[in-house]
Amino acid sequence: MQWYFVAALLTILTSSQGILTKLSQNKDSTYDYDTATVPFLGEIFKLLVSCFFLWREKETSPTPPKLTKEWRSMQLFLVPSVIYLFHNNITFLTLKYLSPSTYQIMGNLKIITTGILFRIFLERKLTKLQWMAILLLAIGTTTSQVKGCGDSMCESLLSGHITGYILAIVSAFLSAFAGIYTEYLLKKNNDSLYWQNIQLYTCGVFFNMGWLIVGDFQSGFEKGFWWQRIFNGYTLTAWLVVANLASSGLLVSWLMKYADNIVKVYATSMAMLLTAVLSQFLFDVKATIQLVLGIIICMISLHLYFTPVHMLVDLPAIETPVRREEDP
Amino acid sequence: MQWYFVAALLTILTSSQGILTKLSQNKDSTYDYDTATVPFLGEIFKLLVSCFFLWREKETSPTPPKLTKEWRSMQLFLVPSVIYLFHNNITFLTLKYLSPSTYQIMGNLKIITTGILFRIFLERKLTKLQWMAILLLAIGTTTSQVKGCGDSMCESLLSGHITGYILAIVSAFLSAFAGIYTEYLLKKNNDSLYWQNIQLYTCGVFFNMGWLIVGDFQSGFEKGFWWQRIFNGYTLTAWLVVANLASSGLLVSWLMKYADNIVKVYATSMAMLLTAVLSQFLFDVKATIQLVLGIIICMISLHLYFTPVHMLVDLPAIETPVRREEDP
Repeated sequence: MQWYFVAALLTILTSSQGILTKLSQNKDSTYDYDTATVPFLGEIFKLLVSCFFLWREKETSPTPPKLTKEWRSMQLFLVPSVIYLFHNNITFLTLKYLSPSTYQIMGNLKIITTGILFRIFLERKLTKLQWMAILLLAIGTTTSQVKGCGDSMCESLLSGHITGYILAIVSAFLSAFAGIYTEYLLKKNNDSLYWQNIQLYTCGVFFNMGWLIVGDFQSGFEKGFWWQRIFNGYTLTAWLVVANLASSGLLVSWLMKYADNIVKVYATSMAMLLTAVLSQFLFDVKATIQLVLGIIICMISLHLYFTPVHMLVDLPAIETPVRREEDP
Repeated sequence: MQWYFVAALLTILTSSQGILTKLSQNKDSTYDYDTATVPFLGEIFKLLVSCFFLWREKETSPTPPKLTKEWRSMQLFLVPSVIYLFHNNITFLTLKYLSPSTYQIMGNLKIITTGILFRIFLERKLTKLQWMAILLLAIGTTTSQVKGCGDSMCESLLSGHITGYILAIVSAFLSAFAGIYTEYLLKKNNDSLYWQNIQLYTCGVFFNMGWLIVGDFQSGFEKGFWWQRIFNGYTLTAWLVVANLASSGLLVSWLMKYADNIVKVYATSMAMLLTAVLSQFLFDVKATIQLVLGIIICMISLHLYFTPVHMLVDLPAIETPVRREEDP
């Protein structure tokens, strides 16, 4: 399978997520199901799918899939979950200092921090052109989100508390680091991707379970234990939300192994713009010039990052040197 | 003199123009002098400066400067003035259909039309990378001007009359064509630039004079003939406005001869952003996130357009093939 096909599919699934979530609301624009259970069920779904694929791989593959089962290696799969645990708590804290719209704008920093950590930890060199493309992607997504002066936006971006900005930057680094670390884990050896997924999602299931238990404690068990109400109010659309989230996760994992974090960042950024465009048609949201500008900027960025340079500057293609026998 | 030095100077002078004009207002934020006379006096100023420089060139240059004096060649210098005459009338018409802020946004199209006509009429090839840089420049200047939804902007951009948009596009082509045609004229032969300027500005003086006369007719000679009040209310700052406009004009002419229209477009676009930044400090205008985004986009565009490609993608520099004697 080609990575750009997977990336395109991820773009479509990710952009459907917001729309499906909105469609899963009841008439009062609230949710009949407990939205906190969605990530947990998503992890279960991914775990089951990965188990199935690993079983099929064992059955059909002529050579048995490689599975590293040492604890030294397996414990590393805890790391992304631990990072996300920190990240989620910091997000919670950041929102005490910054307005949601400022937080959303600051979230685009993740594109740049991913580039930085990609360079540092995975030691992947990027050309100046690719750095500019990454910067442009962040600028493009930000542009599309700017509400403009006149309403609160203009004030709030500059009037947030400095602690909030620092936390948002830390948050952008943590979230990027989780992605970079996952890429490192999946590419570290040539274990079967499904086996690697099983380790990753098993951790995910337990951490999400912990999250639900904490929630129960915080609400003083008002609604009882989480497992007593886990499937309450789940409609078909709500299940689609879970299935969609889980499928996106599986595609991300595939991209991390066979492509890289930058491809994933492009797919999810494009998804954000696609969601905005689809919302125009589905939910009667007004088109803004910022959205149009943001889309053009991101398209240029995509082009700059992925187009071979000889096509950008009309040079003859540089041929890969072919190894040949020494002349006698 | 290096072209980038001239371009930087043009950026500074152009960005001062708006600020000087604002500073030349009286306490009631109106003008004591007739602003319609500024372009006319500017043309006179440029004509005098060019005459002086031509005289000095004749005196000091070891070889006499080349001056083509055929009518066939001289009449071509009327063309830019005629185009501007059309352009100014179309602007006037466009503003009946579009709001001033929409007109301002549409004005950024001139960057793209300049690129198109540069390619078609001057037959200068641009790489895909340079095309994307030009598109980004237009996007960047537009981004910096977007007021955002919430106030009238969001509505007005989409609700203008179609005739207005067509006129704005025609206007962008005309204005770009005047620039391209001037570049063609100045580069057509190796006449002294000062002699070419004299022809250009003589036409400019007459056309601007015509414009003042038309104004007098339109106002029913309420304020008498234009020459009776031409210097009325001119303060030192007002004279600086004239001198600044004229100096910018002379630099543009230099750039057209020794660099090109794209360099000029970059200089004036950067000037627009510089004006916006300076206004923050001088006139207590609030900084917007759009301005910051616009500046970054334009900086990336500048970098993409002018940086040699081997520096963008870390290739070894391509050496210009040196002609050498045939081996014996």
